[in-house]
Amino acid sequence: MVRAWTFPLALEAAATEPLFLQIARGISGDVQRGRLRAGDALPGSRTLAAELGVHRNTVLAALRELAAEGWIEAEARTTRVARDLPAPAGRARLPKSGLGFDLTPPPQIAELAPPGWRGLDLAGGLPDPRLIPVDELGRALRRALKARPTLLDYGSPLGEPRLRAALASLLGEVRGLACPPEQLMITSGSLQAVDLAARCLFRPGDRVGVEDPGYPPVWQTLRAAGAELVPLPVDGEGLCVENLEALLPLRAIYLTPHHQFPTTVTLGAARRMRLLELARRHRIALLEDDYDFEFHFEGRPVLPLASGDTAGVVVYMGTLSKILAPGLRLGWVAGPKALVEALGAQRRMGDLHGNRVMEGAVAEFIEDGLLQRHARKMRRIYAERREALLEALDRHLPGPLEVVPTGGGLSLWARTAPGVDPAAWATRAQAAGVLVMPGRRFDFQGRKVPFLRLGFAALAPKEIREAVRRLQEAL
Amino acid sequence: MVRAWTFPLALEAAATEPLFLQIARGISGDVQRGRLRAGDALPGSRTLAAELGVHRNTVLAALRELAAEGWIEAEARTTRVARDLPAPAGRARLPKSGLGFDLTPPPQIAELAPPGWRGLDLAGGLPDPRLIPVDELGRALRRALKARPTLLDYGSPLGEPRLRAALASLLGEVRGLACPPEQLMITSGSLQAVDLAARCLFRPGDRVGVEDPGYPPVWQTLRAAGAELVPLPVDGEGLCVENLEALLPLRAIYLTPHHQFPTTVTLGAARRMRLLELARRHRIALLEDDYDFEFHFEGRPVLPLASGDTAGVVVYMGTLSKILAPGLRLGWVAGPKALVEALGAQRRMGDLHGNRVMEGAVAEFIEDGLLQRHARKMRRIYAERREALLEALDRHLPGPLEVVPTGGGLSLWARTAPGVDPAAWATRAQAAGVLVMPGRRFDFQGRKVPFLRLGFAALAPKEIREAVRRLQEAL
Repeated sequence: MVRAWTFPLALEAAATEPLFLQIARGISGDVQRGRLRAGDALPGSRTLAAELGVHRNTVLAALRELAAEGWIEAEARTTRVARDLPAPAGRARLPKSGLGFDLTPPPQIAELAPPGWRGLDLAGGLPDPRLIPVDELGRALRRALKARPTLLDYGSPLGEPRLRAALASLLGEVRGLACPPEQLMITSGSLQAVDLAARCLFRPGDRVGVEDPGYPPVWQTLRAAGAELVPLPVDGEGLCVENLEALLPLRAIYLTPHHQFPTTVTLGAARRMRLLELARRHRIALLEDDYDFEFHFEGRPVLPLASGDTAGVVVYMGTLSKILAPGLRLGWVAGPKALVEALGAQRRMGDLHGNRVMEGAVAEFIEDGLLQRHARKMRRIYAERREALLEALDRHLPGPLEVVPTGGGLSLWARTAPGVDPAAWATRAQAAGVLVMPGRRFDFQGRKVPFLRLGFAALAPKEIREAVRRLQEAL
Repeated sequence: MVRAWTFPLALEAAATEPLFLQIARGISGDVQRGRLRAGDALPGSRTLAAELGVHRNTVLAALRELAAEGWIEAEARTTRVARDLPAPAGRARLPKSGLGFDLTPPPQIAELAPPGWRGLDLAGGLPDPRLIPVDELGRALRRALKARPTLLDYGSPLGEPRLRAALASLLGEVRGLACPPEQLMITSGSLQAVDLAARCLFRPGDRVGVEDPGYPPVWQTLRAAGAELVPLPVDGEGLCVENLEALLPLRAIYLTPHHQFPTTVTLGAARRMRLLELARRHRIALLEDDYDFEFHFEGRPVLPLASGDTAGVVVYMGTLSKILAPGLRLGWVAGPKALVEALGAQRRMGDLHGNRVMEGAVAEFIEDGLLQRHARKMRRIYAERREALLEALDRHLPGPLEVVPTGGGLSLWARTAPGVDPAAWATRAQAAGVLVMPGRRFDFQGRKVPFLRLGFAALAPKEIREAVRRLQEAL
């Protein structure tokens, strides 16, 4: 029988949807919500038209649409909701999560800075956004797109050939890498390089060595790919390789030999050769993350492990985040051709390829020598800031903090005096508007270790001095 | 004892590396290559300077560098290669792959078109790159970056808030989605949405339903996340849900209800409601890929499953690749807030976040109504091309091909007459400069099925007519 069915629909003449469609959607919506049931008769088109204050033809158009979609059927002289429609799901009692299926959320990665932090950031090795060459990049973007509109079409998972070529020759020049373009892949930041490599290389349960202290975000990425992490101690000469053999088998080792994260110490020459030899003998992939090569201040940068790899064991990763801009999401991975091809196939199952316009723009940026010039400028500026931080620490906190002497990196690693609780100090400092990282944030077991990490790249010397002053007050 | 060691090094005065460093690298390189061994004595600095034709101070600087890095040590009056250096790895006998570690390469995904294809492309549902509004996008990029230089800094894994807001309201308007911005995430194309969702939702061995015929690239992505795929038959009304219950348990179903890939048929109303109810009852996640919503030509688009989801079971994915440009790598995923947050955490373990500048530019593009205007224009153009293809097929191939009537999509699905071998025909057509896809490319078991997929979006009507003419000749 015909139940009384009122049809309260606010028609928006202004809406992009034509009236007839708004009506059709309103009715099918009522069916889905269960206000109309299978077999229910609809009011006549005249009644509906009057009720809605529209022309009858509009209503007829709506009914035709609904019939075409199978929501209603004409029967004798009345129009009914189709009989073969099942009962509607009804409004399910949703859990607070709003989820109708099971979900084990992935591990949350602790933010370095609390969201919306506005104080003085001595926490990260992050570069200073104020130093990004925005105009040059904007022009390069525009030029790249003008010159090659096809950059907006599909592209290669391995990245823009032009950028691969420019980067390959740059890495050869500056970092001693003998790397033809086909052994180089562009990634969306170096973390994607880690992610792709891990997903290509690891099977669940594979043992993978990581530096301790080290870089927690990468630990999560490696674990997500099934790796069982094995913490490897780090001392003043970087990763301790002496006892590595006792920890075998290892499928891979993720390490930051140039400026170890977070200590910034450089891996010694003897250890480099031992590590390469060990990797060759036991077929261990060395995931070398060279995230801030350019920022070496004492003497010259030490060349990557990759430059001395004659055994095809090093997977070399880097990024333009520190030297140019993080928001570019431009990194790279270099290694044996077979690996690079596998990484490309892996990427085709994910984001497919990167930001071709940006890649084209940065290729030009490198070809024109602008990247190298910018790098030199940044090195100068960051060297000043490093000096400023060292001086300020020496003036204000000679007792409580003893900086570990290293050759580079965008932060300092400082030992706290006995009796000083780094975590508590960092908390008080944050209340005073200064962000510093207690060592435990980087310890594999999260143990309290007597260290602070102090990043100087994001602040001008004046700001650094102010930050250290507050740090002292917060002691 | 002192072995005769000659030091052939081509010094480039022009190189970016200073001479002393080139010398240092040459020597440490010889150590790594084994030409110099631990304990070997080096020639005196005068000898070296003479041999290399450089000033002695340059050589001394090189030796200081090497000593600092631990490669050499001064002993009495002679300088020796450090004794604590282990024997060099030597040049390992590399396998042809160049790999020093084991690698199981991921599955290769068959390209639709052979690399560098230059013929008439009737293969894909790909849009026509010639129709991309390059200048408008270029300007929008420039403006976005000028207005917000911070777009080059780190950003949110969930995407630019401005784009999330613009897209959320657009989806509400056009696709009937009640989706606040916090339930929407920007991704690098819809495939990344599938990848992230799969990695969040699936445990190894989870059974996941897919349409058969369907979209092989997504099958690979789902498998890579551990899914065991269950093919679900498709008929003229889309996914057959009638016998679904017999195939439970299913953790999720990936489907394309609007224009099923590759058949372009639309999922009927009754099946939509059955599917939603089934999903609610059995907690099945419905991964709804609505990749070309706008391109519906007969009647109006049918609203997504997501618009009728009251049970929190639909994960709704879309892309701007078809409507605007594939190279943007801009897609989205909408769903329960808890899922979107999990997807964000997942992305923080991968590429971290997307292309913020592009996201900012496209946000403006939407706010200014340019996207909607462009969409209308594209719909007009593609409708003409669809007509052109239908007419051409009707004129030249009425017997061999029978087009399956559907309401939209950027391609046609045509049944081949008995006795016609689609695969062989496609091969001959390719030789004649026309690319078409035989149905078997989309069959879950790769069986020969009597269908061809003909995409019309990439070609102008004139090109389409020519392509069909050649297709006829190739019969």
